[in-house]
Amino acid sequence: MEDCIFCKIANGVFGSATVYEDDDFRAVLDIAPAAKGHVLILPKKHMPDLLGIDPDVASKVLAVASKIANAQKKALGCDGINMLQNSGEAAWQSVFHLHVHLIPRYKDDGVIIPWKTLSYADGEAEEYAAKIRAAL
Amino acid sequence: MEDCIFCKIANGVFGSATVYEDDDFRAVLDIAPAAKGHVLILPKKHMPDLLGIDPDVASKVLAVASKIANAQKKALGCDGINMLQNSGEAAWQSVFHLHVHLIPRYKDDGVIIPWKTLSYADGEAEEYAAKIRAAL
Repeated sequence: MEDCIFCKIANGVFGSATVYEDDDFRAVLDIAPAAKGHVLILPKKHMPDLLGIDPDVASKVLAVASKIANAQKKALGCDGINMLQNSGEAAWQSVFHLHVHLIPRYKDDGVIIPWKTLSYADGEAEEYAAKIRAAL
Repeated sequence: MEDCIFCKIANGVFGSATVYEDDDFRAVLDIAPAAKGHVLILPKKHMPDLLGIDPDVASKVLAVASKIANAQKKALGCDGINMLQNSGEAAWQSVFHLHVHLIPRYKDDGVIIPWKTLSYADGEAEEYAAKIRAAL
């Protein structure tokens, strides 16, 4: 897409600190990282988010993510990895070209889970499950 | 795995509010949701996390995630979805059977990004990228 910055980065029109590239993806360092070595995996083809993911990209991206996550652990010595994909502005998405975050995590890095957990009343979980099943 | 609660849930030994099931996966409601309708996708086969993901599961799980995310949006009227996979205790993983979170998000739900963004000094991003590339 002509105005999409991630199309330009994924396809090498704009430079980036590239970690991995194949025919379908480029993985680059996020320029505003949550931790140093924070990677974004970008498909070269434009698609907005998980809801509109291309089936071919869906079938390939997690193998790439696993490969890079293992390399981050080896290269950075991090203790864990968060894989995050934000779909929609309400979910913190700011560039509307699908990207998968791989965020290195360390013991005692002080990053706190951002939501308080809720609970369901009796029978309420089954109601929610039924609503979602009906929409599949 | 005998002692793994998510093996038992995925394979129907323990009951759950099931949203989706096929030969490879069961998707259920998280019993301590970040928002009501928060889904966990569980492979029926045991594997710990993204770093040790089975290639067949890697190739199939995002198509399932996309299908369910679309159903959550339709059923719940949420504005966005976070897909999150936590690998390692340092990354908030508490059950060591791979699970992918799909968290419904709403405009103004008050959930704040849990990390402060950093920046790289001149040339530092390229150094990090080179380290990760070398470990691929």
